Amino acid sequence: MKLQLLAATLLFSLFGYSQKAKKNYQYVNPLIGTQRMGHTYPGATVPFGSVQLSPETDTIAYELNKKYNGKVYEYCAGYQYEDKTIVGFSHTHFSGTGHSDLGDFLLMPTTGKLQLNPGTADKPGSGYRSAYSHANEVAQADYYKVKLDDHNITAELTTSQRVGFHRYTFSKAETAHIIADFMYGIYNHENKNVWTFVRVENDTLITGYRQTRGWARNRTVYFAMAFSKAPKNYGAQTYDTDNIYNGFWRRFDQTKNFPEQAAQNLRMYFDFDVAAGEQVQVKFALSPVSTEAAVANMQKEIPHWDFEKTKAEGQQLWEKELDKIKVETLTEGDKVNFYTAMYHAFINPTVYMDADGKYKGLDQNIHTADGFTNYTTFSLWDTYRALHPLFNVIQPKRNADMINSMLAHYTQSVHHALPVWSHYANENWCMIGYHAVSVIADAVAKGNTGFDTKLALEACVSSSNLSYYDGIKYYEKLGYVPEDKSGASVSKTLEYAYDDWCIAQMAKKLGETNTFIKYSTRAENYKNVWDKSSGFMRAKLADGTFIKEFDPLETSQAGYIEGNAWNYSLYVPQDPKALIELNGGKEKFTQHLDSLFTMQLPDKYFEHTEDITRDGIIGNYVHGNEPSHHVAYLYNWVGQPHKTQARVRMILNAMYRPTPDGLGGNDDTGQMSAWYIFSSLGLYPVAPGSDEYALGSPLVKEATLKLENGKTFTITAKNQSANNVYVKKIELNGKPLNSTTIKHSDIMEGGTLVFYMKK
Amino acid sequence: MKLQLLAATLLFSLFGYSQKAKKNYQYVNPLIGTQRMGHTYPGATVPFGSVQLSPETDTIAYELNKKYNGKVYEYCAGYQYEDKTIVGFSHTHFSGTGHSDLGDFLLMPTTGKLQLNPGTADKPGSGYRSAYSHANEVAQADYYKVKLDDHNITAELTTSQRVGFHRYTFSKAETAHIIADFMYGIYNHENKNVWTFVRVENDTLITGYRQTRGWARNRTVYFAMAFSKAPKNYGAQTYDTDNIYNGFWRRFDQTKNFPEQAAQNLRMYFDFDVAAGEQVQVKFALSPVSTEAAVANMQKEIPHWDFEKTKAEGQQLWEKELDKIKVETLTEGDKVNFYTAMYHAFINPTVYMDADGKYKGLDQNIHTADGFTNYTTFSLWDTYRALHPLFNVIQPKRNADMINSMLAHYTQSVHHALPVWSHYANENWCMIGYHAVSVIADAVAKGNTGFDTKLALEACVSSSNLSYYDGIKYYEKLGYVPEDKSGASVSKTLEYAYDDWCIAQMAKKLGETNTFIKYSTRAENYKNVWDKSSGFMRAKLADGTFIKEFDPLETSQAGYIEGNAWNYSLYVPQDPKALIELNGGKEKFTQHLDSLFTMQLPDKYFEHTEDITRDGIIGNYVHGNEPSHHVAYLYNWVGQPHKTQARVRMILNAMYRPTPDGLGGNDDTGQMSAWYIFSSLGLYPVAPGSDEYALGSPLVKEATLKLENGKTFTITAKNQSANNVYVKKIELNGKPLNSTTIKHSDIMEGGTLVFYMKK
Repeated sequence: MKLQLLAATLLFSLFGYSQKAKKNYQYVNPLIGTQRMGHTYPGATVPFGSVQLSPETDTIAYELNKKYNGKVYEYCAGYQYEDKTIVGFSHTHFSGTGHSDLGDFLLMPTTGKLQLNPGTADKPGSGYRSAYSHANEVAQADYYKVKLDDHNITAELTTSQRVGFHRYTFSKAETAHIIADFMYGIYNHENKNVWTFVRVENDTLITGYRQTRGWARNRTVYFAMAFSKAPKNYGAQTYDTDNIYNGFWRRFDQTKNFPEQAAQNLRMYFDFDVAAGEQVQVKFALSPVSTEAAVANMQKEIPHWDFEKTKAEGQQLWEKELDKIKVETLTEGDKVNFYTAMYHAFINPTVYMDADGKYKGLDQNIHTADGFTNYTTFSLWDTYRALHPLFNVIQPKRNADMINSMLAHYTQSVHHALPVWSHYANENWCMIGYHAVSVIADAVAKGNTGFDTKLALEACVSSSNLSYYDGIKYYEKLGYVPEDKSGASVSKTLEYAYDDWCIAQMAKKLGETNTFIKYSTRAENYKNVWDKSSGFMRAKLADGTFIKEFDPLETSQAGYIEGNAWNYSLYVPQDPKALIELNGGKEKFTQHLDSLFTMQLPDKYFEHTEDITRDGIIGNYVHGNEPSHHVAYLYNWVGQPHKTQARVRMILNAMYRPTPDGLGGNDDTGQMSAWYIFSSLGLYPVAPGSDEYALGSPLVKEATLKLENGKTFTITAKNQSANNVYVKKIELNGKPLNSTTIKHSDIMEGGTLVFYMKK
Repeated sequence: MKLQLLAATLLFSLFGYSQKAKKNYQYVNPLIGTQRMGHTYPGATVPFGSVQLSPETDTIAYELNKKYNGKVYEYCAGYQYEDKTIVGFSHTHFSGTGHSDLGDFLLMPTTGKLQLNPGTADKPGSGYRSAYSHANEVAQADYYKVKLDDHNITAELTTSQRVGFHRYTFSKAETAHIIADFMYGIYNHENKNVWTFVRVENDTLITGYRQTRGWARNRTVYFAMAFSKAPKNYGAQTYDTDNIYNGFWRRFDQTKNFPEQAAQNLRMYFDFDVAAGEQVQVKFALSPVSTEAAVANMQKEIPHWDFEKTKAEGQQLWEKELDKIKVETLTEGDKVNFYTAMYHAFINPTVYMDADGKYKGLDQNIHTADGFTNYTTFSLWDTYRALHPLFNVIQPKRNADMINSMLAHYTQSVHHALPVWSHYANENWCMIGYHAVSVIADAVAKGNTGFDTKLALEACVSSSNLSYYDGIKYYEKLGYVPEDKSGASVSKTLEYAYDDWCIAQMAKKLGETNTFIKYSTRAENYKNVWDKSSGFMRAKLADGTFIKEFDPLETSQAGYIEGNAWNYSLYVPQDPKALIELNGGKEKFTQHLDSLFTMQLPDKYFEHTEDITRDGIIGNYVHGNEPSHHVAYLYNWVGQPHKTQARVRMILNAMYRPTPDGLGGNDDTGQMSAWYIFSSLGLYPVAPGSDEYALGSPLVKEATLKLENGKTFTITAKNQSANNVYVKKIELNGKPLNSTTIKHSDIMEGGTLVFYMKK
C-alpha cells in the first residue's frame, strides 16, 4: 500500500499530473498567511508535527543586548513574505499565533568566507544571511525549497514527526559551511537564552539542548543532528560576557574541533569540502526529554538518507488527513483555500512526546503518555470556538487525546488548573477565561469521551475556582469581575459565564446535579455587566456602579480585550435568546447586528489593535479577532437566517484569499481556518458545549466527510454559485429540515445534507 | 540490633559515658581544618553522603553584579572558623578542596523583621545573617548545632544519605521566618546562577531545582523540601534585571503566596507563628535527576519527623565505618586526629544517584547505576596517592564502585576520557595528569577487580591519548611536554610517565603484552626532563633545549604546578632506584633529601602559593601540597629507613593537630587524611599501581583493621612513645621482617605486624 502510494507520487513528479488527478495536499499553499498578520509559516511539517522546519527572514533574534524592539509580534512565525533575505532554517514554529516564541536551532548553509554573524538585511554580505527570491521558492505540504542567492545553494526541507530533514545542493566545488546558530530564537533578546549544551558525539552526530525563558519561561528542547558526511572541521564561538570558570578556556582551544560546548550564547559551524552539484544532508531530531531520546527518535523515524522518501511519506500523511473532507468547489482558489485551511487547522496542537511516549511535564519531571498521544500548544481562547469542535467531527480520536493532554497538564499543575495557553510544558497565561472547560464540555456533549470524565469535571471545577487568577475571587463573590480589581472585566465576566455554562452542561450529562445547578447559576453572570442604559455590556466597579467614561467602539476601552463593547456585547453564545431579550427583542437586536456589519469605523479605533487590520474588519465586525466568530450566525435566532447566509458568504470571500496576504488576521493556531472549514460546509458551532450547529450557507459545491467511525456525511449545495448565497431549503437524509440547526449526531450517524440554493 | 544500638546511644546521651565506653565517632571533631586552609566544613553528613548540610559564614555569594573577589579560595567549604556570623545552612559542600563550588539551597531561620538580604558581617542587623559564638556550637559526626544569637534560635542539623534534616527551636512566641535563598552559592558571582525553578506543591512541600555554571559548568541539583508545619504565608522575590515575558507579572502578584517561581536569581521566605520553645523542622532532600526523585528519596530515607532517630542512624553509620580501624593511641589528641582523619577520608567521593540508582550523567542523560553505587567528586590528582589505596584496604567494595563510576564517566565522556577532576556529572579539568589510571591500576594490582578490567584498560589507554589535552600530542611525539606548548610541563611529563607505568603494570597483569611494552617505554619519559647539569627535573622547549631562567625553589617557576623543582624532582614513584641513580647515587640523593627537610626557605617563595602556608612546610618539604607525599619514605631506598621513621613522625605531629587550625593545608577530599591514616599505621603506598607499601614508623600503639573479607590485621607498636620514633625490628605474623616493605596481600590475608620501637 505504502509502496503503491509512493510509486504514484513518483509518477506525478516525473510526468506531471492533470487537474483531475491532483491530490488534496497539492492544493495546500503554505505561503497563505505569511504576509502581514496571518503569522503562518511556509516551511515543512507533518500533521500535528513536533518539528516545524521553516525559514527565518529577520534579525530581531540577533539584537542581543537590546530590548525587545516591537517586532516580536510581526515575527511570530519567523517569516515575513516581504522580507528579502533568509537568515536560516529553524526547527520549531507556532502557526498563526498572536505572540511569539520558539525558533529553535537555526541552521544555515553558506559558502565563501565563514561568517558567524547573520548580518543585516540592508547590508548584503554583512553576515551569513542570504538574499532569495519568491521565484526560486517552493512551499508545499511538508516540503520547502529555496535558492540562497548569496551562497548559490539550493536548500530543501522536509520532516517526519520529530525530525527535520535538510538537503543542501552546492553549485560549485568549494569549502562550504553549515552554521548552527544556537543564539537564534523567535522573541529573542539579551536574556532569552538561558543555556545551551552541545556535544560532537562523533564525526557526524551532534547532540545537545537549548533552554530558554521566553513566552514559555522554562522550556528546554533537546536535539540530535546528523550530517550525511563528516565535516572536515568544526568550531564554536560563545558570546557570553563572562565565563565564570576559565578552566576550559585556559586548558583548551574550545573554538576549534572541541567536542563539548556549554554557554548561554553559542554559535557553531561545520566546514565541508563540496564538489559542484554535491548534496549535503542534515537530519535534525527533537525531543522534549533528552538527547538520548532525540537520537532514538531519529533512528526510528528516519534511519536512512533518502530525502525523497521522507518527503513522500510526509505528503502521504497530509493526504490521509486532508482526504477526510473531500470537496468540490466553485473555483480552484476556493479549493486552495479549503485545503490550506485544513492544513493550517491540522498543525496545532502539536504532538509533544518522544516516540516512546515520554515527555517533560509542567513540573519538569518526565512523564509517560499512557494510552494517549500527548499534545502541546493550546491556544484555547482561540481554539475552543471552532477548532476543537471541528476536531470532534473530523479528528475525534485526536481531540480526545488533546483533552487527555490537558488533563495531564491539570494533574501536573501546581495551580490545579487546566491549560489557558500552554506550550512545551509551560503555562503562559495568555488571554483570558478557562476555556479548556469548553473543549471538554463540547467533547462530552458530543459523546467523544475517550478520557476520564470524572477527572475532567473535577479539573473544570478546580480551574473555575482558581482564586488568584484574573479576578475569579471577585467573580465568585460579586457575580462579575470588577474592573478596578482586574482589567478586561467585561470580557472576563462574559467568558467565565459561558465557561460556567459549559461546566453545567457537562455536569448535567454526567449526573452531577449540584454542580449543574451551581454552574447554571454562574452561567447567568453575563447579566451582571449588562448596562441597559447604553445597551452594551459594560465594565462595573467593585462598588456595583458602571465605569463612567465609555466608548463602545474603542478596543482599548476599559473592560475589554481583543474586541470592543460592540463585539463583546454579543458574546452570550450559550443563550442567544436571552441576549436578544436583554437587547429589547428581535427587532432591536436585528438592527443592532445590521449596524455592526455596515457602520463605518473611524480610523482612530485602529490605533490600539495590534493583530487586526482593516482587512480583518467588515464595518465594525472584527473577524480578525475571535470574540465575534459566532456573530454572523446570530441572525438565525431572530428569524432572519438569510442574513446569516449572506454575511457568512461575504466573510468567507473577504477574509480568506489564496494568496500570501490572504488571511485577515492571525490564523490563531487554526481557529480562523476552522471557522472557514465549518462555514464553507454550511454550519458552525455557535455554542461549543451544546451538540448543535447553526446552519449558514455553504461555499462548497459538495463535501464528503469521511468520519473516523467509518461513516460518511455528504453536504451538497444544489445550484451553487458565487451569487447564489441564499438557501431555499435544506434536506437532511432526503427529508426537509425545518430548522436552522442540526445536531452533531446527525453528522456522525452519516447521511446527506442538501442545501438548495436560491438561483 | 538497630534498636539495641539506638538504646545504647540514648543511654550514653542520658547518663554520659566514661572514656572507656566512648564510641569512635565521638572522637571525630568536624571543626578540625575549618580554620585557615583546611577547607573542611563543620556540618552534618553521613559517610560518602550525597548531602552535606553545613553553615555558611561569609558573603561572597551575595556580591552579585561584582566579579569574583578572591575569596573563592578561602570559602571552598563555605565556613571559616574565625568568622563571626552565620548566613545560613546550605546542603552541598566539598571537603578540603582547593577550588570551590556547590553551596546549594541555603536555609536560614530568622525572627523579627523579614529581611531577604543576608546583610554584611560588619553591620549587625543589616540582613538575615546572625552572630554566633563557638561556645554555643556543637560539631559531631552527622550533627551540628549552633545558637543564632541575633534571632534567638537554636539550629540543629543532621542528615541521611540524601536528606538534610533541620530542627529550629524558637525561644519566644512570635512570627518567625525561614529564608530559602536560591541565589546563595559558593563560588558565586553575577552569572553563576543559570536558573532556579520552585513549586509550592502543597501546604508543606516545596520542590524545584537549581542550575549553575560554576566550577562545574553544567550542573543541576533537584530538591524537595518539607516543613513540619505549614507556613502561614510565603513569598518570593526575584533579582533578575529583566523578565523577558511579563505575562506572569502582569497577571499575578507573584511575590505573595504564588506557588510557581522561575528565575535566574530568586529568594523565598516562609512565615510561621511559633510559640516559645516551639520547634519547626525542615527536611530537605536532594536528587541529581528530578524533583520527583527528590520526593521519593525523602519518603524512603526519612518518612518521619524524628530528628533524634535520623541523627542516631547517621552516627551509627559513622560508627560502622570508623570501627573498621580500631586504634589505641598515645594521647586522646592522637585518637581525635585519627578518627577525624578517617571521618574526612570517608566523606568524598560522594554517592551520586537516587535511591533507585538513577543519576544524570556527563551527557546530561539519565543513567542507571546497574549493579554498583555511583560516586562523584573525584579530586584524582590528590586522591590517587593515598586515599584510593586506603580504600583498597579498608573500603575495597566502595573503591571498586568508584572505579565503576569512573568507567561510567568514561563511557559517557565525549572526550572518551576517564575523569580528571569531576563532580556532579561535570569534568572541570582541574590539575594535571590522567590519574584515574593510577586508581584503576592500583585496584588491579591489589586484586580488587569488581569492575570490567578490559573496559578499564581501554579507558586508561584512551585517556592517555587525548591529544588535545594538556600537551599530550607533544608528549606522545617528543617523550616530554614542551613548556612552550603546554605549561607546567615538567609536572605533566613526570606525572604522565608515572601514569603510563600504571597502565603498563595493569596491562601486564591483564596479559596485554603490547600495551605493557608500549607503556613501559612511556613510563621512562621522566628521564627526558632530567637536567644533569642542575640536578633537577627542568622544563624543556619543543626544540629540545632546557629553559634558561631557572630557580629550583620557585613554585611559580615555569614547568611546575603546586610544587617547585625541589619537590617535583623527587617525583618518580614508580622507580625510586632509577631516580637515585639519576641523582648520582645513594649518598648524593640522601644529602639532597636531607637538604629538603632542613633548608630555610626564604619568604619570597611563599608569594605565589595560594593553598599552603608555613604550617604546611618543613624546610622546603611541602606537605600541604601533594607531590611530596611519598618523599619521606624515599629514605628507605637509600638504606636509611630511620630517617623515614623520624620524618614521618615529625610530619604526623607537625601537620595534624586536633584543633580547628590543625591541618597544614587543604585536606583535598581526604588525601591529607589518608596520608595520616597510613603513616599512623606505619606504612605508605609510595607507588600506587604496585602491591607494596613502604614501612615507616607507626604513631598508634595498636590498630586493628577489620577487613571486608572478614579477616583482621593488627598492627602493634611495642614500646611506643612520643620519643620512641625509631623502629628496632618488625615482625610479620610473628616472623622477623627483613624488609622496608610489606605486600597488600600480607594485610588482606589477616595477621599481625609488630613494630618494636627503640626505647
